[in-house]
Amino acid sequence: MEDLRTAGYQGAIYPVGTSGGRLGDLEILPSLRLIPGEVDYVIVAVPRQSALDLLDDCAAKNVKAVHFFTAGFSEMDTRQGRKLEQQMVEKARRGNMRLIGPNCIGAYCPEHRIPFLMGILGESGSVGFLSQSGGIATKLATIGIARHINYSKGVSFGNGIDLDASDFLQYLAADPKTRVIAAYLEGTRDGARLFDTLKKVARAKPLVVWKGGRTEAGAQAALSHTGSLASSPAIWSGMLKQAGAIEVHDLEELTDALLIFQQIGRGPGTRAAVIGGLADGGGGNSVAAGDACVENGLEVPPLSFETKQKLGQLLGEVGGIFSNPVDVSQAQFRGLATLFQAIDLIVRDTVSDIVLIQEDVEILLPIYSQKGLEEINGFLIELAGRQGKPTIVVLPSGSVETERLQVEQKLLAGSIPVFYSMERAARAICGLNRYYSAGGRMKPSSSRPAQM
Amino acid sequence: MEDLRTAGYQGAIYPVGTSGGRLGDLEILPSLRLIPGEVDYVIVAVPRQSALDLLDDCAAKNVKAVHFFTAGFSEMDTRQGRKLEQQMVEKARRGNMRLIGPNCIGAYCPEHRIPFLMGILGESGSVGFLSQSGGIATKLATIGIARHINYSKGVSFGNGIDLDASDFLQYLAADPKTRVIAAYLEGTRDGARLFDTLKKVARAKPLVVWKGGRTEAGAQAALSHTGSLASSPAIWSGMLKQAGAIEVHDLEELTDALLIFQQIGRGPGTRAAVIGGLADGGGGNSVAAGDACVENGLEVPPLSFETKQKLGQLLGEVGGIFSNPVDVSQAQFRGLATLFQAIDLIVRDTVSDIVLIQEDVEILLPIYSQKGLEEINGFLIELAGRQGKPTIVVLPSGSVETERLQVEQKLLAGSIPVFYSMERAARAICGLNRYYSAGGRMKPSSSRPAQM
Repeated sequence: MEDLRTAGYQGAIYPVGTSGGRLGDLEILPSLRLIPGEVDYVIVAVPRQSALDLLDDCAAKNVKAVHFFTAGFSEMDTRQGRKLEQQMVEKARRGNMRLIGPNCIGAYCPEHRIPFLMGILGESGSVGFLSQSGGIATKLATIGIARHINYSKGVSFGNGIDLDASDFLQYLAADPKTRVIAAYLEGTRDGARLFDTLKKVARAKPLVVWKGGRTEAGAQAALSHTGSLASSPAIWSGMLKQAGAIEVHDLEELTDALLIFQQIGRGPGTRAAVIGGLADGGGGNSVAAGDACVENGLEVPPLSFETKQKLGQLLGEVGGIFSNPVDVSQAQFRGLATLFQAIDLIVRDTVSDIVLIQEDVEILLPIYSQKGLEEINGFLIELAGRQGKPTIVVLPSGSVETERLQVEQKLLAGSIPVFYSMERAARAICGLNRYYSAGGRMKPSSSRPAQM
Repeated sequence: MEDLRTAGYQGAIYPVGTSGGRLGDLEILPSLRLIPGEVDYVIVAVPRQSALDLLDDCAAKNVKAVHFFTAGFSEMDTRQGRKLEQQMVEKARRGNMRLIGPNCIGAYCPEHRIPFLMGILGESGSVGFLSQSGGIATKLATIGIARHINYSKGVSFGNGIDLDASDFLQYLAADPKTRVIAAYLEGTRDGARLFDTLKKVARAKPLVVWKGGRTEAGAQAALSHTGSLASSPAIWSGMLKQAGAIEVHDLEELTDALLIFQQIGRGPGTRAAVIGGLADGGGGNSVAAGDACVENGLEVPPLSFETKQKLGQLLGEVGGIFSNPVDVSQAQFRGLATLFQAIDLIVRDTVSDIVLIQEDVEILLPIYSQKGLEEINGFLIELAGRQGKPTIVVLPSGSVETERLQVEQKLLAGSIPVFYSMERAARAICGLNRYYSAGGRMKPSSSRPAQM
């Protein structure tokens, strides 16, 4: 209640509870049947023993959808829990209602100011998600706020006894505000339908799926969490691959994929220019960056002879690396204008489709100070906009987190995707390439999020 | 000069330069030969054209060791560069001197207050390292400061024309203050000797090796970086495995390994108890944690029947997961004393050898506030000390980095290793188990660093 009102939800809200009394300026009604007019949506937090009575009240009011926070059903692995769920579904069918949950935190919609618990609410955007886990759903929302991954709609659906993954996938596939779809799944009651849905959805929009409970330990937890039964990880992987979905294996990989799909709505190509040592320390990092890119599926072709030669003239012969990865650290002795010229030269070289820039705030800050740091990032944003070649910044964490977070926010606001390691950036780009080279159908006209 | 003096280096320092003049209260001597008395160590930053003359001066003063910052040798891939290196080695042999570098940042020794560039200097400890890259060496030092990985000695040796990886490995293996050794290598001039050394060293102490330049792109950068020639990654991996060294593939994996080897000087065993949801959001995270542990080589056995039963009584039946991974989030409705009892129960269960606790500051803070957060981490430190079972905290980054960093520092100061994801923690523990089960010879009596 408090969260919805604080978030600025504009619809009418009616608190209902047997206690009666008031909640701020609102009267708590002793029964749902006493609400004046129509009820679109009911959010339930009563004990499970009252779930069936509540559904009777909902049916009497012709409610369309009911979301149950309430837990204690099939995830307890008891006969009683499973029976109760069955009865709820029957009541919903008879009353022409649809259920979200039980055992879940329900809907998230920034556009209509519907937050998650604790009032978590980000900007409205083009990524839709569904999650069987409320914790993972909440993490998607909070990481979204931090990394500028902006959502159209999201839903946590817990045990999914009525509306299931397939229903939410179909909804998001049809939703004109959703361009990319993320799913965290622990299991399904209808594998054949899910496979069929995944295929159709992935053909319409990029679909990134994280299957939790791949191992016995994970599956055991999934059973206690959302009552999901195990099935082999190989079956899931095969199904996702055949459906044309992008499979990811953890929260990092999932949010990395969402960020890159949101920002770059096409397959950029695999040939990467890798630039490191913006101030210093570019040698070993360039070696490591080359390994990380190639081991994660990118190519790192040598720069053209002409570019190499110009870089040598610009930066001097000693101490740099001018092949690719490129170490431009010698610019530190010649000033920012030289650094910018060098980066511009590398980006313009047609040997690459995409540019990966390693920026280490810990090293930059003592050499260029806060002002230089701002100039460098302003230049990168300007350059990416001007050149049109997809440009990504790798910004590892370190000992100056406040400044690093500021840089990250500035770059993200400037439409540059930011990753925390070269491995993660390369892996995300490769997912993008794989999806589009397999015939993903996103139209080029909708290739950038609307708000950018 | 400035760095050494600021760091508090206690030995005599003599600035030498053809310019003459003064540096603060010190006179700049126009020649090294004018230094009164013996010279132990020379740090060189002259242009490469003066390298040979300088070595003549060093020989005349009976200098023992010379470190060259100076770059522009074989890493330029020129005949001139290679020839100059050869002449330097010849002069060193004739003068009975040893060389570090060229093209490197040299020695790091917290105990004797010898910092890296920019005055980087951490606490003295038990981890020794060698690195062909100055950038990676500096990163090891700064990450060490942030993560309480404390070094005995470190060295960046660049092109390694005289003293090579094998020499530094032998030194660290014999050094009584070094218990764990880390190496970042790009190549070697003597593969047979290196292999032999690796074998001997890994038998004496845990040895963690990151080989840079595994791919063509990485190897190309390595050639320009330290003049290292490529060899197949499969050959390196095979060699490291046969030698009994732990191979890692990036900076994260390397520092994770150093932290766990420093803190837990034995193979703890593979059976993990995984505790999540200290406040909320423990469901999906428990599923994911189970997957991450098992996929990275740990076992996650179910808790004993007795522990499960006690947890059910303590936390109530609904909303928790009491198998393993364990979701204790229901304690949020019963207070911290209940949370601590639950964790204590799980840790005491003999089904596990090691405890992994997922702590999400972003979720904990709004529920328990700063005071609760401090109590929880105080309890974890106390518990780990009391129970003696290796206890590790997974502390993902999120939207409250200041508080997260405070928690990390508190836990590290309390001797609890902290990782940023379950995957990384599980992988590090497995490296530890593999090393000790293969017959690593560290004595149990030296199983904790001296300073703890």
